[in-house]
Amino acid sequence: MTRMQNPIAVDDAVLSAVRFGENGLVPAVVQEAEHGTVLTVAYMNAESLRRTLESGRTWFFSRSRQELWPKGETSGAVQYVREVRVDCDGDAIVVVVDQHGDGACHTGSWSCFARVIGTGPGVARATPAPRRVISRPAGTDEQRLTEED
Amino acid sequence: MTRMQNPIAVDDAVLSAVRFGENGLVPAVVQEAEHGTVLTVAYMNAESLRRTLESGRTWFFSRSRQELWPKGETSGAVQYVREVRVDCDGDAIVVVVDQHGDGACHTGSWSCFARVIGTGPGVARATPAPRRVISRPAGTDEQRLTEED
Repeated sequence: MTRMQNPIAVDDAVLSAVRFGENGLVPAVVQEAEHGTVLTVAYMNAESLRRTLESGRTWFFSRSRQELWPKGETSGAVQYVREVRVDCDGDAIVVVVDQHGDGACHTGSWSCFARVIGTGPGVARATPAPRRVISRPAGTDEQRLTEED
Repeated sequence: MTRMQNPIAVDDAVLSAVRFGENGLVPAVVQEAEHGTVLTVAYMNAESLRRTLESGRTWFFSRSRQELWPKGETSGAVQYVREVRVDCDGDAIVVVVDQHGDGACHTGSWSCFARVIGTGPGVARATPAPRRVISRPAGTDEQRLTEED
């Protein structure tokens, strides 16, 4: 059954397919809608997924602090949700978002995946690199909130 | 120091930033180079990452079988690596690939993320849906190899 809410229309049958792990968490790949850039991998428990779907903004669960964490609450780097998908065996989700503010990463990079381990042939066709890298003062609330997650 | 090998050029300093978890694994987000589609989330240990970088094809670690697993070995659904990135705190990687064969998923979908939990506003601008869904006989080697991972 599909239920409408503001702003995410949820398919409850698909939602019930999500399998949270022994720690109660599922990895969430956050991908930017416009460019397809993978912004971050964070973790959700059932409550953070519920809040994400109800609010239309990403909520995660901090493994280090063991608490719910509304992304961008203090920094303004909010992620507005376009779509949430679950994989074939239900143990990972993809959240397609519009990233606001200065980006997804507490280091100041637009994406958390700013560092390249290795480059293969034909990389010019690969996905765009993070489109901007900005500096942000160390020790901001957002940095405190996101480090180690 | 950057070392060249065939076909992946590896930055050893960045490679050393990867932090494998208590189970020796790191989640790997596999993203298609051409469309940016997130194909799957799988897991790598140090040895599977090494083999991936040395061979230019994805190798994962099967949590259910506790063994290394060369993606597409039997099905031909090989993933050729364009780029490997690591995130800010080293506990997740992104592997940008060219997907060959019938796709990444043992269900026959091109992407493992074929099911939509929820849809928000403006979804027309979201990333492309899996570009094709094919049927494949149940019980093939690839299905056996990939289920539950």
